[in-house]
Amino acid sequence: MVGGGQLARMTHEAGIPLGINFKVLSDTPQDSAAKVVGEVVIGDYRDLDTLRAFAQGCDVITFDHEHVPTEHLRALEADGIPVRPGPDALVHAQDKGVMRARLTELGIPCPRHRIVADPADVARFAAEEAGGFPVVLKTVRGGYDGKGVWVVDSAEDAAIAQPFLAGVPVLAEEKVDYTRELAANVVRSPHGQAVAYPVVESVQVRGVCDTVIAPAPGLPDELGAAAQQLALRIAAELNVTGHLAVELFETTDGRVLVNELAMRPHNSGHWTQDGAVTSQFANHLRAVLDLPLGDPRPRAPWTVMVNVLGGDYPDMYPAYLHCMARDPGLKIHMYGKDVKPGRKVGHVTTYGDDLSEVRERARHAADYLRGTIDE
Amino acid sequence: MVGGGQLARMTHEAGIPLGINFKVLSDTPQDSAAKVVGEVVIGDYRDLDTLRAFAQGCDVITFDHEHVPTEHLRALEADGIPVRPGPDALVHAQDKGVMRARLTELGIPCPRHRIVADPADVARFAAEEAGGFPVVLKTVRGGYDGKGVWVVDSAEDAAIAQPFLAGVPVLAEEKVDYTRELAANVVRSPHGQAVAYPVVESVQVRGVCDTVIAPAPGLPDELGAAAQQLALRIAAELNVTGHLAVELFETTDGRVLVNELAMRPHNSGHWTQDGAVTSQFANHLRAVLDLPLGDPRPRAPWTVMVNVLGGDYPDMYPAYLHCMARDPGLKIHMYGKDVKPGRKVGHVTTYGDDLSEVRERARHAADYLRGTIDE
Repeated sequence: MVGGGQLARMTHEAGIPLGINFKVLSDTPQDSAAKVVGEVVIGDYRDLDTLRAFAQGCDVITFDHEHVPTEHLRALEADGIPVRPGPDALVHAQDKGVMRARLTELGIPCPRHRIVADPADVARFAAEEAGGFPVVLKTVRGGYDGKGVWVVDSAEDAAIAQPFLAGVPVLAEEKVDYTRELAANVVRSPHGQAVAYPVVESVQVRGVCDTVIAPAPGLPDELGAAAQQLALRIAAELNVTGHLAVELFETTDGRVLVNELAMRPHNSGHWTQDGAVTSQFANHLRAVLDLPLGDPRPRAPWTVMVNVLGGDYPDMYPAYLHCMARDPGLKIHMYGKDVKPGRKVGHVTTYGDDLSEVRERARHAADYLRGTIDE
Repeated sequence: MVGGGQLARMTHEAGIPLGINFKVLSDTPQDSAAKVVGEVVIGDYRDLDTLRAFAQGCDVITFDHEHVPTEHLRALEADGIPVRPGPDALVHAQDKGVMRARLTELGIPCPRHRIVADPADVARFAAEEAGGFPVVLKTVRGGYDGKGVWVVDSAEDAAIAQPFLAGVPVLAEEKVDYTRELAANVVRSPHGQAVAYPVVESVQVRGVCDTVIAPAPGLPDELGAAAQQLALRIAAELNVTGHLAVELFETTDGRVLVNELAMRPHNSGHWTQDGAVTSQFANHLRAVLDLPLGDPRPRAPWTVMVNVLGGDYPDMYPAYLHCMARDPGLKIHMYGKDVKPGRKVGHVTTYGDDLSEVRERARHAADYLRGTIDE
């Protein structure tokens, strides 16, 4: 796996029972995965020679992020190394412009959008297609966790937005009138087997995933099934191998629109470690290794995951003890990272029959670990 | 953790979400744990200097087997390294003579037993205490998986039994009239917090654990609770830290007698990985690190674990594919070991509402992986 973050760490964890010899290419020995994986190579994924040396002896290459340059992936494929997901699929998770164009071509519902060259273009898009301002601007590459996204209220606002100042390609989108965000997560094998997890609700705080509730409360069955079908269709049409997260807006008029795609294990699927028969990490590995996929069904009526962000106290240990003592059924997942304010350093999961109780337990633990509550 | 077998491998897996930096002392780089653990030291646990160097920087030392010499453990303690379980507890899992003497002193029901010096002693024990032959002979140290145990039908049989030929201390025990074997597994912290898993049935084939059913079918509630109390009492009296497996005989007259003790994660607890809220591996780590313990309750009405033994075919991969495709809910746990006939190379777990179906699924997968069935 290229990338040594927490996704690689948790993929290794899932690979141990499968008997998989897991190797990671990590930026530094302090990275989350590098601390626990048996075979660690330290190097820069942007360097083709480093990637080539890393790929020696691997049956397949996969990723914990979308940042490996497409031309490097093609070079590895030309060397005979299976790359999963492949570059032709992955580009749709790397480039929002390519993604929007392709999904629109496939007739898949998306927010109205246009690649814009300058603030005047944004104003035209707002007037002609988006029903006026506000408009959402996104860098087509490199954004994550709310980075690379701006909501602008006027052409003047757009003129001072960072992407234009930086001179990178910009995608303008209508600001969708949505009630909540959902995620439809599926896993697909090279030979086309696919499984769909229950559609979940994803609650974002300041652009960062905060809480995931599985399944999405009150989601009409037809809409849930339609969202799963949509995700399965995208996986098939784009020839995705591995885990595909389709982030969705549920609109006030009862439709779903595609927001983003991710082709790797995804924060909206962390609940599956404790809440599903087969976790997203295990199924991602099974898919990229072309093994038969595991059962994606939930194990409990409700599972809630809340991210643990770093707070003002670098030493999380006393809070970690407290949370374990307070709730013996709490599932803690720490990433082995130094605590910095706002940094994702872990997540907690709870499950059970009563959603409000399950949600309150996870919420309390995450807040206590962050230090925003002290009892 | 001292020892690089599958128990260390699975303990590492359980330590990743807890954020634990896990280091293993392994005999060879090919050992089960050495293939997946981030920090591996290759060395001989019988050598004190090796142990001392390994212990540098560790917060606590624990074990995947009972074979570290007691005097070495005392030396580590004298160096100021916490050793859990400590040598005074561990000796009861290392030496069956010490274990029997102590449990008897505590009034804990055991088979009738005597340390015997020679075949004449065995004959006297048979006549005076065991109700005649057959009698079970055990080497007091070093036995496992049926090794170091002999059933003898006469003094003549005893005379040719290996332990006397080898000149090692021998424990003679009555051959208990039991209906089945049970295991009561508990975990205890240094400060005395303890949890008890449901009592399980353990089915042995030729002295090797084959199947574990959780909870033990048809076990009267009072007997189950009594067995849990017994295990908790042993853990407290012997000052055990970590996981304690108490292997029991359920007798034809409705009592339980202690067969063996193990002070580490144990084969009779593997079902907890998929079948309990907190696995034995996670709770062993939580105990030895003096973290609050996790909920030991089962997640499903029935969980069945069956060991996968190596068969005649060294390449298990086609069978592994077949089993995953046939049963997407099957939980496979491979140890990364080369396949040799009769060697434990993994286990499978299934869970659900219907015991016979759950058991059949696990049985089928284990037999298919071994190669004793082909459909």
